[in-house]
Amino acid sequence: MKVSAAVASPSPRSTRARDKLMHAAERLYAEHGFANVSIRMVGEAAGQRNKSAVQYHFSTRDELIQAILARHAAAMDTHRIPMVAALEAAGEVSLQEWITCVIEPTIEHHIELGTPSWYGRFLAQTVVEPSLREYSVQAHLRTPSFRRLEKLRPSRRHERDPEVGARSAAMIRLLVVHMCAELEGDLAEGRADPAGAEQSWRRLGAHLITAICGLSTALLENA
Amino acid sequence: MKVSAAVASPSPRSTRARDKLMHAAERLYAEHGFANVSIRMVGEAAGQRNKSAVQYHFSTRDELIQAILARHAAAMDTHRIPMVAALEAAGEVSLQEWITCVIEPTIEHHIELGTPSWYGRFLAQTVVEPSLREYSVQAHLRTPSFRRLEKLRPSRRHERDPEVGARSAAMIRLLVVHMCAELEGDLAEGRADPAGAEQSWRRLGAHLITAICGLSTALLENA
Repeated sequence: MKVSAAVASPSPRSTRARDKLMHAAERLYAEHGFANVSIRMVGEAAGQRNKSAVQYHFSTRDELIQAILARHAAAMDTHRIPMVAALEAAGEVSLQEWITCVIEPTIEHHIELGTPSWYGRFLAQTVVEPSLREYSVQAHLRTPSFRRLEKLRPSRRHERDPEVGARSAAMIRLLVVHMCAELEGDLAEGRADPAGAEQSWRRLGAHLITAICGLSTALLENA
Repeated sequence: MKVSAAVASPSPRSTRARDKLMHAAERLYAEHGFANVSIRMVGEAAGQRNKSAVQYHFSTRDELIQAILARHAAAMDTHRIPMVAALEAAGEVSLQEWITCVIEPTIEHHIELGTPSWYGRFLAQTVVEPSLREYSVQAHLRTPSFRRLEKLRPSRRHERDPEVGARSAAMIRLLVVHMCAELEGDLAEGRADPAGAEQSWRRLGAHLITAICGLSTALLENA
């Protein structure tokens, strides 16, 4: 296994190169999908003259993808941790409060990314690609804040059917990822007014919370 | 504008060529997306030696895409029309009956396509591509059965906020398209057992109906 540059503390120049590669990769994958983008194209788009730039900084394409996912998941965690702490202090947690704690940090993160951004559409590509779907699930749901949030999940009156639970989770994931990707694309390409971006994101967030509460309740009580 | 071969009644050979092109296009677009597939690639995949085969049979790429969408929408309509007729005869229509009439024909069509199939993933690509999203909406929602179904839509107690109505429709569309695309991909690539395909589709359909009733009710009564 190749020893990567990250074994020693990376130089500022190395960090900048990594950042450029991650930004270029995110944008290319968001716009073209994974099957159609080579790591050489990523290196060129990042302005790297060295043909093996990606392998040097990330070893493999999958590690590059995981690095992008981890960066965004960590940023969302920053927003979620204080919300989780508040729920832990409150004691009893309603379904709506719980779902809000899942969704709102995602929305805040999209707002802080600004317009244009590519992460939402990058994420939409990962959930379509089965081999990469697991990376995005791990990156988002195995963070410190989510582990604490799982313990606070409101319990159901009757025993949860694991198949229905998995279906509900899959539907929620697809809904959040694709609605966010759609808004991000609309803002980036001018179909939605970037001046109203923050309001648009918050309104989407409110609708997602309401919709997910309804979807989840219906499935887990009726299916 | 070019006079296409469809002006006169097409020969059997011409129809076979059109079919081959449509099948090749559907599969390539499903697996790679629209940005990454040229119409020349479609022609080659369909075994056409003539480099302009697509233009000859369809004039443009968009017409080819619309032909694919129309073919599937017509097949779904065949399933939906008797259900709509039954609802019209019944008089009062519940939300669940109405949603069932939207979803079940889609499920039946996926079952009749068999395994492997590509239409679900093709459709998922069209809803991601903003210029093509409108084609897929038109193809599906402007069919004879849907026009009749719209008239039977259960009314809401309070006036519908058009923005929330549009949001609800967008969420339902994304949920159905992406959940179907995911199952289709799982069956095609062996992550789900093709021997149990029919049961898997029907179970997904039942869950979608339940989830959509919950999502729609929550949004239109609470948002």
